[in-house]
This record gives sequence, C-alpha cells and structure tokens, in this order.
Amino acid sequence: MSSSSAAPAAKPPMREALVAAAFRLFLERGYEQTTVDDIVALAGVGRRSFFRYFPSKEDVVFPDHEGCLADMTAFLAASAEDDEPVRRVCDAARLVLGMYAENPTFSVQRYRLTKRVPGLRAYELSVVWRYERALAEYLRRRFAGRPDGTLRADVVAAAVVAAHNNALRSWLRSDGRGDAGAEVDHALAHVQAAFAQPVRVGPAARPGDEGPDDVVVLVARRATPLWRVVQEFEALAGHA
Amino acid sequence: MSSSSAAPAAKPPMREALVAAAFRLFLERGYEQTTVDDIVALAGVGRRSFFRYFPSKEDVVFPDHEGCLADMTAFLAASAEDDEPVRRVCDAARLVLGMYAENPTFSVQRYRLTKRVPGLRAYELSVVWRYERALAEYLRRRFAGRPDGTLRADVVAAAVVAAHNNALRSWLRSDGRGDAGAEVDHALAHVQAAFAQPVRVGPAARPGDEGPDDVVVLVARRATPLWRVVQEFEALAGHA
Repeated sequence: MSSSSAAPAAKPPMREALVAAAFRLFLERGYEQTTVDDIVALAGVGRRSFFRYFPSKEDVVFPDHEGCLADMTAFLAASAEDDEPVRRVCDAARLVLGMYAENPTFSVQRYRLTKRVPGLRAYELSVVWRYERALAEYLRRRFAGRPDGTLRADVVAAAVVAAHNNALRSWLRSDGRGDAGAEVDHALAHVQAAFAQPVRVGPAARPGDEGPDDVVVLVARRATPLWRVVQEFEALAGHA
Repeated sequence: MSSSSAAPAAKPPMREALVAAAFRLFLERGYEQTTVDDIVALAGVGRRSFFRYFPSKEDVVFPDHEGCLADMTAFLAASAEDDEPVRRVCDAARLVLGMYAENPTFSVQRYRLTKRVPGLRAYELSVVWRYERALAEYLRRRFAGRPDGTLRADVVAAAVVAAHNNALRSWLRSDGRGDAGAEVDHALAHVQAAFAQPVRVGPAARPGDEGPDDVVVLVARRATPLWRVVQEFEALAGHA
C-alpha cells in the first residue's frame, strides 16, 4: 500500500502529488468547488495524467482503498485450513486500520471531508460494502457445508466491519490521537467473543451447531416466574 | 406503509400509478433507457406530479422505504424500558421484511433490477445504512452507560441487518416462493442467540459479557422436556 500525504514529501511520485494537490484544494475551497482542472493545474500535470490514476474526482479522495482491498483479498486467500476463521477476518480488517493509521493527518482530513459531502459518503458506503463482501466470501468458503454457513458468514462479516468502524471512527473523531490499534483490537475482541467459539448450553446446541430448525431461543429476565418461562418455551417450541 | 404493485389495481392513487408505469417501462426498456418523461406519459400525468411524489427516478424504485423507515423509528421510540433491546431491534427489522413480503412480485422485480443497475445498488446501500443507523441509535440509548455501549449497539445493529438481508435475499432469489417470515425469524434467532445478553454458562459469564445481569438466554431443542427447560432456566438465572 502506498501512503499518501496532504503535505507532499520532496519529489513525490505523480500519483501522490495529485492526491496532495487535491486535498489542499478540497480543504481551501471545498470539494464541490474544486475541479479536476484545478487539481492538475496545482500539481503541474495534464488532465490525462489525472485520469491515468483516478477514474473520477471521488476516487482521489480514497486513493488507497483499491490497494487495501487487493491486500485483504490476498491475505484471506493465503489463509491456512487451521486458521480460526473469525480470527482471520479480524486480522484482515486490521489491514484497513493500518492504512488509516499510517497517515493520521490525511485520514482525519478525509474523515471530515467525507462527513460534509453526501457523494463521498455514498462512495465510502460502497467501499465498506466491498470490504464486507470480501470478508463474507472468505467466511462462506470456510463455513461451506455447515448448516447456515452463509448466514453465519454474512453476520460475522457485518459484525467485524461494524466493530472495526466503530473503533476507527472514534479514533478519527479524536483527531487521530490515541492508539488506533488498541481501540480496534478491543472492538474486534467483542466479535471474537460472540462468534469464535460455539458455546454449548446444557443439552442443546446453539443454532449453527446442528439443525437449527430444531432449536428455540428463549430470552427472559432472571426474575421471570417459572410458569411464564414454561409458557414461553411451549409457545416458541410449538408445543402449545 | 402503502403497497405498490407493478400491475395497477383498478383506479390506483396517482403515486401507485406512477410506480406501476415506471416498473412496466423499466422491465420493457431497461432502467437507464427510461426517462421521467416516459413514465409520466404512460401514467397520463404531468412531470410536476412525478416530482411531487419522488425526488428522482431512483426514488420511484424504492417507493416504500421512507414510510418503512418512519414506521421503524416510531416502533423503536414506542419501546418500553423492559423490552429486551436485541429482541426489539429484531422485531423492528421484521417491519422491513413485511414491506417486501406484502408484494412478492414487485419485490422480486425490483431485486432483479437493482442487481443490474449500479446506481440503484448504491441507492440501496444508502437505504440499508439508514435502517442500520436507526437500529444502532435505539440500541445506543438502551446501552447508554454500559461499558462499550456504542460498540455493542453498532455491532448488534449490523448483525441484525446482515441476518435480515441474508434471509430476505435468499427469499428474493427464490422468486418470492417459500415463507419469507420463517426464513427471517430463523436468521434473527441466530443474532439473538449470540447477543441477547448475557448467556451464563456454568458459574462464569461468557467472555464479552457485560451490563445488567438480569436477562438470561436459554437455547434448547424443541423436543427438550419441560422439566429440563425449567432446570436449565433455574441454573442460568441463578435460582438453583
């Protein structure tokens, strides 16, 4: 993954110079008020150079996501059969965090910009969706043949993305202060606790362990009278 | 929520007539090849009538989501303090399913259309995001003051949406045959089993447990004898 900086280093490659110029203008004039012509003029290159690197103005806002998606896909494809699948997707999600944490200033600027521009928000949703699908597809392969394998895969992928993004956004809102990695680790530990190990409760398996049509889930307060528990169970189990 | 049909009933209201005309043209000519002018010509109304009901051509594809979002928000706002929060958001998600199941033919047509048109896919992602935020905001209120309340809220909301959409899409791919409600119930039971807190296993709480300890989740096979259910509940609830 290449890093990108709003303050260009000496002799940056052209792609990074375009990103730097774009962000300088987005912050000075606003995103909508900046054209691709303005960006290439500031970067001192031609329009064709811009479109060699970026399909559109939106793409220059998220210059590293394609690379990160490719890294994530490769990381998941390299998974061994004995890797615990939920842990593996948590590690894959950390690649995204790494991309943000590599350049906190740029990431915080982009976060503020994205919040203000609805078109960028929509673009970001589509990127997040692609990460989620990459995780879900890996999990679908790993859970293939299990009852409810695709359901479990989709739910775990969504939970991992939500936990990662909760921690990432909290870090971005704090202007990139604090330890992003520790926040994300903490958030992902929640998901691993919920999903990594099936827990047996008494004689019954949890749904997903075996034929789940056969399983009922009863949620009740501790103080619920026993007659109410029995009534509820009978209704859920279809005995009544 | 109003229902919408691709085959208009006798004397449909103007909004439904516009939806019906739009879908007839989308299916005959394709979405991109249909203009708002084509739609209003077929429906026999003026352009201004169209834009009174729909901000854009995309919105006519999803005519009921705004109403469903409003219903969901109202349903969550009407929640009592002793509603188990995870169960409540599962019930809220069922409102979305209800909207789709109300008119299977229309829902299946729209599903196929949305898969083919990237702009509609992006629109749908933004709608799904708004449902997820509505669920997460309710859960954030309910989990306020708990450690990791917002993290937990975001993760549960994402898991509920993923489970719901896994079942909904499976039903849509089967051309709306089968029992959508049963599929969604089954999918949501997974999320409740993972998150409706806290599950006590033996003397120790599961890793990740937190918050008020007054709810127990009992997972059991349908065929479990009642005496065993009572015994299990007592053990989980700490009565025994």
